This record gives sequence, C-alpha cells and structure tokens, in this order.
Amino acid sequence: MTQATQSPTKVDSKASFTGLKCKECGTEYEATAIHVCELCFGPLEVSYDYSAIARRVTRATIEAGPKSIWRYRDFLPVATDNPIDVGTGMTPLLQANRLARRLGLKKLYIKNDAVNMPTLSFKDRVVSVALTRAKELGFTTVSCASTGNLANSTAAIAAHAGLDCCVFIPSDLEAGKVLGTLIYGPTVMSVQGNYDQVNRLCCEVANTYGWGFVNINLRPYYSEGSKTLGYEVVEQLGWELPDHIVAPLASGSLFTKIHKGFQEFIKVGLIEDKHVRFSGAQAEGCSPIAKAFQEGRDFITPVKPNTIAKSLAIGNPADAVYALEIARKTGGNIESVNDAEIIEAIKLLAETEGIFTETAGGTTIAVLKKLVEAGKIDPEETTVAYITGNGLKTQEAVQEYAGQPLTIEAKLDSFERALERSRTLERLDWQQVSV
Amino acid sequence: MTQATQSPTKVDSKASFTGLKCKECGTEYEATAIHVCELCFGPLEVSYDYSAIARRVTRATIEAGPKSIWRYRDFLPVATDNPIDVGTGMTPLLQANRLARRLGLKKLYIKNDAVNMPTLSFKDRVVSVALTRAKELGFTTVSCASTGNLANSTAAIAAHAGLDCCVFIPSDLEAGKVLGTLIYGPTVMSVQGNYDQVNRLCCEVANTYGWGFVNINLRPYYSEGSKTLGYEVVEQLGWELPDHIVAPLASGSLFTKIHKGFQEFIKVGLIEDKHVRFSGAQAEGCSPIAKAFQEGRDFITPVKPNTIAKSLAIGNPADAVYALEIARKTGGNIESVNDAEIIEAIKLLAETEGIFTETAGGTTIAVLKKLVEAGKIDPEETTVAYITGNGLKTQEAVQEYAGQPLTIEAKLDSFERALERSRTLERLDWQQVSV
Repeated sequence: MTQATQSPTKVDSKASFTGLKCKECGTEYEATAIHVCELCFGPLEVSYDYSAIARRVTRATIEAGPKSIWRYRDFLPVATDNPIDVGTGMTPLLQANRLARRLGLKKLYIKNDAVNMPTLSFKDRVVSVALTRAKELGFTTVSCASTGNLANSTAAIAAHAGLDCCVFIPSDLEAGKVLGTLIYGPTVMSVQGNYDQVNRLCCEVANTYGWGFVNINLRPYYSEGSKTLGYEVVEQLGWELPDHIVAPLASGSLFTKIHKGFQEFIKVGLIEDKHVRFSGAQAEGCSPIAKAFQEGRDFITPVKPNTIAKSLAIGNPADAVYALEIARKTGGNIESVNDAEIIEAIKLLAETEGIFTETAGGTTIAVLKKLVEAGKIDPEETTVAYITGNGLKTQEAVQEYAGQPLTIEAKLDSFERALERSRTLERLDWQQVSV
Repeated sequence: MTQATQSPTKVDSKASFTGLKCKECGTEYEATAIHVCELCFGPLEVSYDYSAIARRVTRATIEAGPKSIWRYRDFLPVATDNPIDVGTGMTPLLQANRLARRLGLKKLYIKNDAVNMPTLSFKDRVVSVALTRAKELGFTTVSCASTGNLANSTAAIAAHAGLDCCVFIPSDLEAGKVLGTLIYGPTVMSVQGNYDQVNRLCCEVANTYGWGFVNINLRPYYSEGSKTLGYEVVEQLGWELPDHIVAPLASGSLFTKIHKGFQEFIKVGLIEDKHVRFSGAQAEGCSPIAKAFQEGRDFITPVKPNTIAKSLAIGNPADAVYALEIARKTGGNIESVNDAEIIEAIKLLAETEGIFTETAGGTTIAVLKKLVEAGKIDPEETTVAYITGNGLKTQEAVQEYAGQPLTIEAKLDSFERALERSRTLERLDWQQVSV
C-alpha cells in the first residue's frame, strides 16, 4: 500500500457536480477528499448544477442507460465516463402481496437490496460511487470503518478495481461478514471495541495516512450513492413517488439520501411533487434516534449498542439530526423493536415473500408491522420498505429459531413416518394457537 | 399439503411450446407432469413452434421485455402471461480483465449467477420456470431432490408464490444451505445418504404423492430455465456468440441447455451461426463425466461422491451422455480438479474480480485455469465462465484458508504495530515466492 496523492483535481466539464458545501453554514469547498467544514465543523455535501441536469436528463435518457446505479450518473459526484460498474443497483422492487395481506396493507413494496451486487447489501451503491471518486482523486489505497456490510463491499469492489484495501471492523462481527471480507484479500483490522470506537480510530488514521476512507474523508461522495435507492423506487413505480417509506437507521445517512433523491427528481422536473412520509427503524438495543424522536428532542444522546442488529449498531450516529428533521417534517415516525421482534420479522418476510434478510432488514419489517398495528401507516398508502442486506451474512441470529430438518433414512416408509409426525405437529401447533 | 390434480391442461394458444417429445425415440406427449418416455425410458424434452417464435420475436421485443428471464418467455414452456417473476436472471456478464491477465487470456467474461435473485444461484432460473408451470398444471405442493441450491430456491419461490413445499436434501449439506432453506418455512427432509440416494427416494415419492417435483416429474419444464444462461450471454455480448464457454457439470443439464439456448437463437434468426466450444468442469471427487470424456467412452460409470463441491456431487448424472456429446462435437474438453485447486480458485476469483463464489464456481475457475495452462483454451478466444452460486452458502469450505483479521486495540499505535507486522509478513511472503 502506498501513500495517496490527494490532488484537488478540477471537476470535469461533463460532470454535473460543482463542489462541496457545508450543510450548516453554506461555506463552499473544492471537490477534494474532505468531509468537515473548516469553519463550523458541519458536514460537507456535494453541490450540483441542477439546471444543467434538467436540460440534459429525461426519463428516456435514464431508461436507455445501463441496468445499474450508473443510469443516474448525472446525479452522482463522479467526473469519469467509465465508473466502476459491477452491476450494482436496479435491484427488484417487489410487490409484496402476501406480506401486505398478513399486515393489513393494500399496496406494499419491498425494495430488495438483499440481492444487490456484488456483496448483497445497499453498501455496494455507496462504495461503487466512493471508489470511482477515490480513483479520480488519485488514491491507491482505500479503507473504511464498518459494521460489516461496508467492509464486504469495500474489499470486493477494491479487488475488482485493483485498489489496495485495509478495512476496520469491530471484533464481535458475525462470521459471515468477516469471511465475506477476508476472501477478497484485503488487510482486515479487527478492533477490540464497538463501531463508534472503530470510527474514532479511523478518523485518526485518515488524518495520518493518505488513504481514501470511503465513509470518512470520501464521505460526501460515498453517501450520495444512497440517493439511487430513491431514484430506483421512483422509476420502478412508473415515475411516481410512494406515499410512505420505511428504512433502517444506523448513521441516518441512507434515510436522508433517499429523501434527497426524491427531492432532486422533483427539482429537475422528472416527476410530480407529492408528500412522502418518512419512517425510520432502529433496534431497541441501539435506538438513540428513536428515543430522541419519541421524546421530542432534536439532538441525540449517544448509547452503547447491545443488539443482534449489528449492522445498525452505531451509538453516536452522524446524521441523526437530519433524520429526525425529515421524519418530523414529513409526518413519519421513528420506532424501535427488540431482538425477538427482529427475528420474528426475518421469518415473516422469508415465509411470505421468499426473501431472506439480515437483522437490519428484520428491524425494518418489525417496525413496519409495529407502525401498521399502531395505525401510523394507513392501509391505503403505497408503502415501500427498504431491505438493505442478506440473511446469509447473519446466520447466527436466526440459527436456533429456524427449526430443524427431519432426519430420515433413504426409504419410503421412513419418509412417510416423518411426514406423518410433522403433520401431527402442525395440527398440534394449530390447536394450541386456536385454543 | 394437499394432493395435486395433474390435469393435462391444454396448452394455451399464446404459448409457443407444443408438447413433450422423447429425446431418444421421438415419441410425442401432451405437456403434462411426466418426464420419461413410456416406450423407451428416454428423457422427455419440450417442443416449440419455432416458426411462430421467429415471426413474433425480435431483438427489440426482447430488449423491451422485463429485466429478468421472462424477457425470453416465448422460449420458455409456460402458457401464462403472469409468470412468477421475482427478478430472476439478467445477472451481470462481467468483463474479467484482472483475472484474464492472471490466467493469460485476452477476452474473459464471468457470467455471475452468484448474485442471481432471489437465492443467489442459477437454480432460481429453473425453479421460476418449474413453479410457474406447476401452478398451471394445478399443483399446490412442490418438492425437489437437492444438493442445496435447488432446495434454497424451491423453498423461497414457493413461499413467494404461496405454494406448499417439501424438500429433500442429503444430511451432510453445508450449514448455510440448510438454514437458507429452513428460513422460508418448508418441510425439510434430511436424508441419511448421498444425492443419488435422495433422488431415488424422491422418484418413489413422486410416483406415490401428487406433488410437483421440480427436477423429477416437472423436469422437462424446469430444465428449460437454464437456456436463459445462454440467451443472456448472447444478448449481453451485443447479440453475438462467444468462442468458448466453461460451465460446471453436476447432472449435465445446465451444460446441454446453454447449448440449446444458443442453437435456438440461431434457428429463429436472432443471431449469426458460429462455432462455440463447450468445456465442462467437475471436481475430482465426483468426476464420472470427466473420466468418461478422458477415456473416450460415451457412457459413464457411476461413482460415490467425495468432494467439497457438494452442489456438484451427483455420482450418477442424468444428462451425462448429452454433455459428453456436446463437448466432443464442439471441440471442447471436460476436466476435473481437486479440492485444493477449488479453494485456490475461489480465492483467485475473489481477489481479482471481487466475486465470492461457492465451491461449484471454484471448480469452474480451477478448470478454466487448467485448460488455459494446457493450451486447451486459446488466449484469443472470447471465453465465458459460468459462476453458478454464492460463497456465503459454503463458508466451511474456505474458512480456514481465507486468513484471519489482525486483532488490535482501538488505538493508533496498536494499529500501526499491526500494519507494520502485516507488511513484514507480506515482504517475507514475497521473498519466499521470489527465492
């Protein structure tokens, strides 16, 4: 791994992004590898020339684009015509009729990033953007602080792009997430501490080494990748906004970027304006944003995470303030659910829709259920629930709750006895339920 | 689960398939749930009215279709306009430049079904077709004999479609494949025996119960789904055939159906004819087809499988004869590799292309490497290697070979010491290699 040159490259004339801007005080910066305002310490965000985009982009130009997030290239902060495209994005928006019936909804859709490419989580979106920009900025080593999915994605896409890679994870991660990083051959630092401690260490490393940390010094570019989860849902609904979305909250970034994606499509005239309610999902064992929402605060109190939803276990979420603001101003909610509810929801989604999600997706579905039961989602609303990762990565969480196969000999009578037993058990189950 | 009605429904007038036909003696049958010729015991295959297809289908009609296998509906044996579509197919065809360079090839592509939807293997293709047809034939319970991936897929898609499901697997399967079936809530029969014993038991069950076994009584429909792996590669190469394909061999069905897919596209005038070489990959611990190929036999001798490539562990493969014929007449090869080579190839693909495949995919890449080294693939040939399943399902196979993370404290100096150690190790590695 070599030190990178952080050359503040001129933004290409074909690119629609114009630089960085502080979300708090509005100070403008060149599009380099910085993420915090030097004046007020506010987060930096990418600016675009929306009138240029509006002149260039139509529904037809998007539809004629690649079957990946790069069909929305004009809305993403890269200058190149050859971004890193490994098929990321354009995951199915599945009409979930069987789950909808179970919950009492009429029009429910699942945006299924459990099958996003290449590493089966929404993080492939943000990493595809971040590493494309990292190459433009001259980085040769990329890195991240991760709760698991981000490490998988950074390692895989760096391997494909031929970039050196060093990732940082908390030492208590699920086995599938560790192996699903190691296999791509990066350096993996397993940090004895929780994600917030990993993140603090990485901030120090980012200041010392010339590496491109996708979610630190490249964060303004990286986080823009999540907007594609907004764009795709709109396009897949036939260029219409939904009425209500439910998404998980870790740092809060995903939530705010889906909102930004919707707003941008309205701004450039691709779709009609419409009120969309934004609801967020957290696990009880790490719910600083849900707590602040329920207590009417506009700031969070950091917590020490303790939940099976490890990919959501950020105790001091960077974008909490903005997530709270969006949920409130759109008339949405932020709720939390416990580990048992998360496991039940993973099974519910699998049994009704054939989608096996990780604990973060279980959190989203459990909160969806809770909000419907509390009357906080109207059955008539067109609702989209965002499933952000795959269940094969967090097998430990459901292993003992998924039941066991029936072991039989390779003989017809052995099969028939087992089938009879299982049917008797089903009947008993049913009788217990109906008593 | 209820007994199914096997009504021999008339084929819909919009459908392009006309019935079933024995591959050996040519006897014709109605399109019901049968798979073996009553006269000669040959396998039955679906027949189509190709002139009707040629009149109706163009590149443009296909390109305007859904982003799934159902864009090729006219070539698939279903009558409905509403097939089960959970986004299966249209997986990336990735130009694998880094792997190509390592192997000494010029134009190598990976067809990446490790990210196929919904259950991350090519089996989602065949199951989407089989269950759509099962519903048309009136089945309410579906089943399969599986080495793992098929069980995942049948259980998931049955859950989505609201069909009852009972699957049969050998009792020694990988944990991820067992959990990745159980989670969808089917009845799972874990049979004490190998796949060939499971399959024999299922043939008995299929004769006794009125269930739709996707790979037994529904096999003629099911296997047609694999043709889409041929169609997609042609479309993704810009409506051109490759020069050489390498695919894994379990039953041999996938291999023969890719060939059929290419031939059909030529027959209806969608593409120019061109000679394509077909090479097949097996694991040494279960290589009856590779052995027959090398010994010049046109029949196989069944074996007892003993390999980490469990999804390829079929000792008595049903379509071996046809696979041998295709490899020979196209000037391809059938090779086998040992377990160590399979593991090395899984790592090679991950490190060069960011794709984490299961043992079957490792087998394919290891055979690809072996064929290149033996001069049996020309560096100038446009070569496509088929990756058929995801590495998160067979974690046991690579767990101890993927290395370990470096455990550190959440402190900069702890990180720096670990980084220095890892760099020293890399240098030592390098010195050992270069000595």
